Formats: sequence, C-alpha cells, structure tokens
Amino acid sequence: MSTSFPPPRNGAAGGVPSSNVGDEVALATWGGAVIRGFGTDRDPARLVFFSDAVFAIAVTLLVLEIRPPEDTRHLLHGLAALWPSYLAYAITFLLIGQVWANHHIMFDHIRGADRMVLFLNTLLLMDIAFLPFAASVLAGAFHDGHGQRTAVVFHGLAFGVAAVLFNAIWDYARHGNRLLGTGIDAEGARAVSRRFRLALVWLATGTLLGALLPVLGMAVIAAFIPYYWLPIRGEVARP
Amino acid sequence: MSTSFPPPRNGAAGGVPSSNVGDEVALATWGGAVIRGFGTDRDPARLVFFSDAVFAIAVTLLVLEIRPPEDTRHLLHGLAALWPSYLAYAITFLLIGQVWANHHIMFDHIRGADRMVLFLNTLLLMDIAFLPFAASVLAGAFHDGHGQRTAVVFHGLAFGVAAVLFNAIWDYARHGNRLLGTGIDAEGARAVSRRFRLALVWLATGTLLGALLPVLGMAVIAAFIPYYWLPIRGEVARP
Amino acid sequence: MSTSFPPPRNGAAGGVPSSNVGDEVALATWGGAVIRGFGTDRDPARLVFFSDAVFAIAVTLLVLEIRPPEDTRHLLHGLAALWPSYLAYAITFLLIGQVWANHHIMFDHIRGADRMVLFLNTLLLMDIAFLPFAASVLAGAFHDGHGQRTAVVFHGLAFGVAAVLFNAIWDYARHGNRLLGTGIDAEGARAVSRRFRLALVWLATGTLLGALLPVLGMAVIAAFIPYYWLPIRGEVARP
Amino acid sequence: MSTSFPPPRNGAAGGVPSSNVGDEVALATWGGAVIRGFGTDRDPARLVFFSDAVFAIAVTLLVLEIRPPEDTRHLLHGLAALWPSYLAYAITFLLIGQVWANHHIMFDHIRGADRMVLFLNTLLLMDIAFLPFAASVLAGAFHDGHGQRTAVVFHGLAFGVAAVLFNAIWDYARHGNRLLGTGIDAEGARAVSRRFRLALVWLATGTLLGALLPVLGMAVIAAFIPYYWLPIRGEVARP
Repeated sequence: MSTSFPPPRNGAAGGVPSSNVGDEVALATWGGAVIRGFGTDRDPARLVFFSDAVFAIAVTLLVLEIRPPEDTRHLLHGLAALWPSYLAYAITFLLIGQVWANHHIMFDHIRGADRMVLFLNTLLLMDIAFLPFAASVLAGAFHDGHGQRTAVVFHGLAFGVAAVLFNAIWDYARHGNRLLGTGIDAEGARAVSRRFRLALVWLATGTLLGALLPVLGMAVIAAFIPYYWLPIRGEVARP
Repeated sequence: MSTSFPPPRNGAAGGVPSSNVGDEVALATWGGAVIRGFGTDRDPARLVFFSDAVFAIAVTLLVLEIRPPEDTRHLLHGLAALWPSYLAYAITFLLIGQVWANHHIMFDHIRGADRMVLFLNTLLLMDIAFLPFAASVLAGAFHDGHGQRTAVVFHGLAFGVAAVLFNAIWDYARHGNRLLGTGIDAEGARAVSRRFRLALVWLATGTLLGALLPVLGMAVIAAFIPYYWLPIRGEVARP
Repeated sequence: MSTSFPPPRNGAAGGVPSSNVGDEVALATWGGAVIRGFGTDRDPARLVFFSDAVFAIAVTLLVLEIRPPEDTRHLLHGLAALWPSYLAYAITFLLIGQVWANHHIMFDHIRGADRMVLFLNTLLLMDIAFLPFAASVLAGAFHDGHGQRTAVVFHGLAFGVAAVLFNAIWDYARHGNRLLGTGIDAEGARAVSRRFRLALVWLATGTLLGALLPVLGMAVIAAFIPYYWLPIRGEVARP
Repeated sequence: MSTSFPPPRNGAAGGVPSSNVGDEVALATWGGAVIRGFGTDRDPARLVFFSDAVFAIAVTLLVLEIRPPEDTRHLLHGLAALWPSYLAYAITFLLIGQVWANHHIMFDHIRGADRMVLFLNTLLLMDIAFLPFAASVLAGAFHDGHGQRTAVVFHGLAFGVAAVLFNAIWDYARHGNRLLGTGIDAEGARAVSRRFRLALVWLATGTLLGALLPVLGMAVIAAFIPYYWLPIRGEVARP
C-alpha cells in the first residue's frame, strides 16, 4: 500500500525489493577465487539516486562558470556581452536534462545492477561531471572569438562519450535479456536502442560539422534537444 | 504499513506506484511513428527528487558569491561592507525557499509527469540554477553603487520567469483535469492557480518598480516572502 | 513489508503517510480568507530530504575555500602553512555534522511540518549554508594573524543562530504536544530540550570568550563536538 | 508490495523499518546520566543518503579545480597542457566511485547505526570531501613539474585515511556481530574484511612508493581501481 523512491523495478517479484540474480557462469579465477559473472546484482536504487545527484550538481555548477561583469558602470552592456555564457549554459543544461530523462527511462527497465553496470555508469557520471568545464571552454571561445572549432568539438565529444556509454549500458543489459525487467518487451527495448543509437549519430554529426563550421555544429546539436523530448514509441513507464 | 519519499501520489491506485495513463489521442506522426499525447506519464518521484536537489544546490551555492575580505587588519569593517552580499543572499535564499515550498504543494497534487511536464520543469530548474548569478550581479551593483536598476530588473526577471513556468505547469496539469490527483477539488485547484497568478503579478510589479526606484522594487519583492508563507486556503496536503 | 527513506513518522497511522492535522483555531483573516493555524501539516519527508541535501552540500563546499599553494617548488611548506584552513575545515565540518545528527533526532519525533516549521527550518538552512563563508573568514584571520577575535565571534555567532533556531523549532513542535509523534514521551522531549538549550549556552560562552581570547573561544567550541556525540538519555529512535 | 530507497536492512523484521537495538550494557555515567552503549541504533537510511550526497558532491566538485585556458588563440594547445588536471580528475573520480561502491556494500550489511558508526562515518565523509583539494594539489604539481612526491603522498594519504576508516567501521560493526544484518554469514563478513584490509595495504604501498618515485606510486594506486571492480566472493547483496 505504498509507493517509494525510486519506483520498484519491473523484474522484482512482489514485495522483494531486489534479488540475487548474479549470472551463474564462472568467467575467471582470481587468486583462487572463482569470479562468477560480474558479481551480485543489486537493486539499482542507490545507483539511480547517486546518478541523479551527480546530474543535479553538474547542471547547477554550470552557473559558476558565468562571472558577473566587473564594471558595474555599464552593467547592462556587460550583462549583454555575456551572451556566449548564457548560450553555453542553456545548451549544456538542456542536454544534461535530456541525459537525465533518458537515464530515467533506461533504469526504469533495468532490474538489477551488477558490477559491470556500476562500472559503466561510473564512467558515464565521470563524463557528465566534466561538462561544466566543456561549457566553460565553449563560452570562452565564443566570447573571445578564437578557438570556436576546437571548443565545439571538445564540447560535442564530451556528449558523444555520454551517448557511447548509454549504448554500452543498454546493450549490456539487453544482451540475452540479461538485466531487463518484465515491463518492456523486445520491441520496446529495440525502440530504446534505436533512440540511443540515433543520439550517437546525431551528436557525432554535429561534432564533425563543428570542426568545419562551429555555428552549424552547435545548431545541429541544439536541434537534438527538442527532438529528444518526443516520446519513444513502444516504451512505457511500467506495465 | 510504510510511508516513503516522496509521498504517494493522490491519483495512484493502492499499491501501484505509478500507472501508464498517457493520453490516448494521437497528436502527430514523426517518421512513421504515431506520437500519442506527450508520452507516458511517469511517477513524478524522480522529477521531485531531481528538482529538490537542484533547489538545494542552488541555495547553497549562493554563499560562494560572497568573497571574504582580503584585508584582515580591518576585518570587522570589511565584513560590514559586505552588507549588499548578505542582503542578496538572504532575499534570494528565501525566494528560492518559497519556490521549493510551492513546488512541494504543486507536485503533491500532480499524479503523473508526462514529457511536457518534464520539459517545463527542466526549464524551471534552468531558471532556478541561474539565480546565484543574478544574486551576484545584484550584490555587485549595490556594493559599487552603480547599475542597481539594471541589477534589480535582471534579478526580478529571473524570478518572474519562474512564476511564468509555475503557472504553465499548473495550468497544463489542471486543463481538463489532465494530471491532477484526486486529493484536490476544483476549488482547491483554483486557489492554487490564484496564488500562482498573484506571484506573477507581484514579481512583475516589483521588477517594473525596480526599473524606476531599485530600493522600492527590492522592497516589494522582499514583501512577497512573508506573504507566501501563509497557507493557501482550500489546499490540503492529502485527503 | 517495506522500509523507506525517510523512516515513517511516529505519529502516522499505519499505512497513511501523512495526515491533515492542521490546527482548527482561526488565527487571522487575510483578504477575506480565514487562515487556520499555520496551514496544512505535511509529512516532513521532503523537508528532511531538502535539509539533508543542504547540510551535505554545505560541508562539501567547505573545501573550496582551501586554495592550493601557488608555489609548488616548496609544496610541503606551502601545504603546512595552510593549517588554519584545515582547522577551520575540520571544526566547521564536524559542527555541521553535529547539526545534521541533531536534526535527524529532532525530525524523528516531529510527525508533521506545518508552515511555521517549514519557515523556521528554511531560516536554519539559510544559516547553515552561510557557514562556508564563516569558515573562510576564520581561516583567513588565523592565516594572516589579524582579526582573529572578529572571526571567532563571527563564526561562533553563525552556529549560535543555528542553536536558537533548533530551540525554536523544537519548542514550537513540543508546545501543547502540537506536532510531536507518539514515539517520545514527555521525559524524552525534555531531555532533547535540555540538550538543545545546553548547545545554545555552550556556543554563546565560546563566542563570548572568543571575543577576548580567540584561541580559548575556539577551544570551547571545539570541545562541544565530542560531547555532542554522546547519546541523549531518554531519547530513542522509534518505539 | 513495495521497494524503497534505500533497500530494507537485512536485520529488520518484516515491516518494521528500524528497531531500537541499542546495547544494554552501561558503559559510563555522564553528569549522572547512565550512558548505555553508544546510544540508540537508528536505521542507517539517512546516514546512507547523507553519505551518498557527499560522495556525489565531492566527485562533481572535482571539475571546478580545472580552469579553462585563458589564451583561446591556441585553445587546442591549452587544453592539451591540462593533461595533469584530467589525470587527477579521472583517478580521483574513479577512486571515490570505488569508495561509494564499497560503502554501498558495507551498509547493505549493517543493520543499525549507533552513535559510534555515525561518528566514524562523519570522519570518513570529512576525509572524502577533502579530496578535491588533494586532486588539485596533485594536478598542480604535475603541471609545474615540482613537488610531485609531496603531492602523490598527500593524495595517497587522503585515500589511506578513508581505508582506515572503512576498516574501523566494518570491524566495529562485525565485533561480536554487533550491528551486522542476517544477510551475510561469517565467511562473507571475513571476505569483506579481507578486501578492506587489502585496500589499506595497497594504498599504503602506493603512497610509500610515491614518496620515492611519484609516477610509480600513482600507477600502483591507479591499478587499484580496476581490481576493486571485481566482485567480493561470498558477499551477496541480500539473501
């Protein structure tokens, strides 16, 4: 008679928050110990919480890269001159917001997190937490009028790495239906895969174009944002 | 026999933490896929958690904009001279505290978050996370004695945008009773709407006055804080 | 069959996460609306979460006030010269840790948060989030060898305000048994009150002594930390 | 029929989120009050949440220590020259990620947190929150080419202290089966102990080697990261 944060995993049997569903195939021996699969599956609750916290902190730290104008005699002018910072802030914030929403979708359907999922997710968070720096580099380049191509590629690569890691986590969880819950069928899982692969192609395209025409590259990446708010067909929150 | 964070949604049937109540009207087709409504409704639990984290980080980052006096020989004098920073800190902190409390009220009554709610809420968070910068601009202008009008308007606009987005989320959720839970009746929902609209008018008035008389504008906005701690008549936490 | 974060309130009836127990005495009219008590009581879950987030962020931001030595040729010497920063970091961290632990105890026994509790708690958080600045002032004064008295008093006052607000929240909740849960009896509630009042006296004494002898004042405040890890007699987590 | 964050403790009886299992041996008297054990055991839910928040903030703050190149005319070169910052970022992030994962394992098996656990955990968090500073010192030394030995030892010591505190918390909880849940048997508890002791030895070795050959010390510490993603034999998430 209760609900909770985060929502119960689809694959969890009624009333049992998590179960030990580690795969039973011995993969290696290490110092005499048989390592089975990639370790015990854990309820992803703490992983989801930890990830959400990192996403929330990363987006909120973006603002620290915007420095108030020193000259308050011409404050309006000084504030207007910061447009590259506002733009880098908005684009990076909305892209991380997208990453958060898609992480939400992904882990609504992953019933357990083994050590491989924990590891890949840690790499993903390491990439996300790096983004305030990439945003700062982007704003600096457009502000100074130098290095825009480098900055757009740097910023685009950081998001491209996130897309690679999303695909890796999802493919790992989907493979042989290893870690997916019962709330998504094969077609829904394929729809999520298609969406994640499209993200990779889209971001790579924007990054490559940015190496030639920085403004065009940014526009392509920015266009990714509204598209990704559209629902994924065949994917539902829970059965 | 348990309670949980965040509390169960009013609209949730007993024991079912969330349900797929996506609206059934096809709105558009996209690449052959029929897009129904604005996608699957999700339990707002992760949205609420993510939002609370951003609010908490934004208020706590405010302090980073206050720089300790460099000259420790006259430390008391140096600390006193920072009064504009303390004032900007207190007003911005208490206003964000208000935003948090009202977000609390709003999502106590929204039973599901579709993609439109997620999107509008992301815009709201982008605005909130920007506020430490606005607070810093405000403190700088009052410290230097220049640009106060610009700074008050800039700060007021940032809160005005938050009020617009509150109204947008609430109106969207209320429209045709789309996403409201059963814990609030029509009169209660109207009371919340009236409160949110008053916020918009109040903040707009303060901002406009600030364009003429910065101190008066700030006073009007500051007066908003105690008023908003008063309860909303007809609104109760849960039935 | 489940447990949750945060734990159920003592006063909550089985299975009902929160209840509307707003007091029934009309206190004022405002624009024609009768304001009853201080509004709907809400489950303190979101308040507790929000507070914990602010405590966690405040302690973690403390480190940003420590700047790495610029001269890496004499790095060991440079790191040693930062001892006032390490000391301010440790004392402030451990004091905030105490505040967190006592907040934990207090809200284990408060069954509902009305608007007055929300308001007082917001003031408390505003004070806590200010502490990284106070710690930075303290470190700066001991580093430069000037202004230590001012800095110790400033730092002590910030914690003194926290103690005042703890007492205000607890007294408000205790008064007429307004908001206390059933898990604590009158003797336990008095034991908590005694502890919170002692904190106020202790911190005020340290602050006053610091105005005369800064090192003695800091020592008195530091001695507060180990004492407060001792359990409160008569207070138990839950019945 | 629900799951929750964080997962129920192994030792908790069905439906009872936490219980008062404070040990019954009077250890001391303080001002006339008999102090029993180390106080009431509390459900570690809030401790776990608070710790996760500090871990999440500490890893995300690491990026603030990386400053964008000032000279955007040679941006690519400037970004490349920051390699020591990227390295310090990655190693520290992944080590804290390890600490988080092991904290996860440890508190999956600790059924209650008394005041000693709270105190030791607070010291652990104080150490973790200090790591962005250690990472910054490390990056600075490798960037300037001076003080690497000091920096590697400083950084290694900070992680060594974390390992000491992990061992202290686990040994305290294990002692006489004081606070362990029923989900781990004696062999599993020993496996966890062995892993935590190995961490201490490994980090101490890396730190000592770093005092002689900084690059070798860092390599030894970095090699610790992949090893620790391997599962602990005999340890399972929950029965």
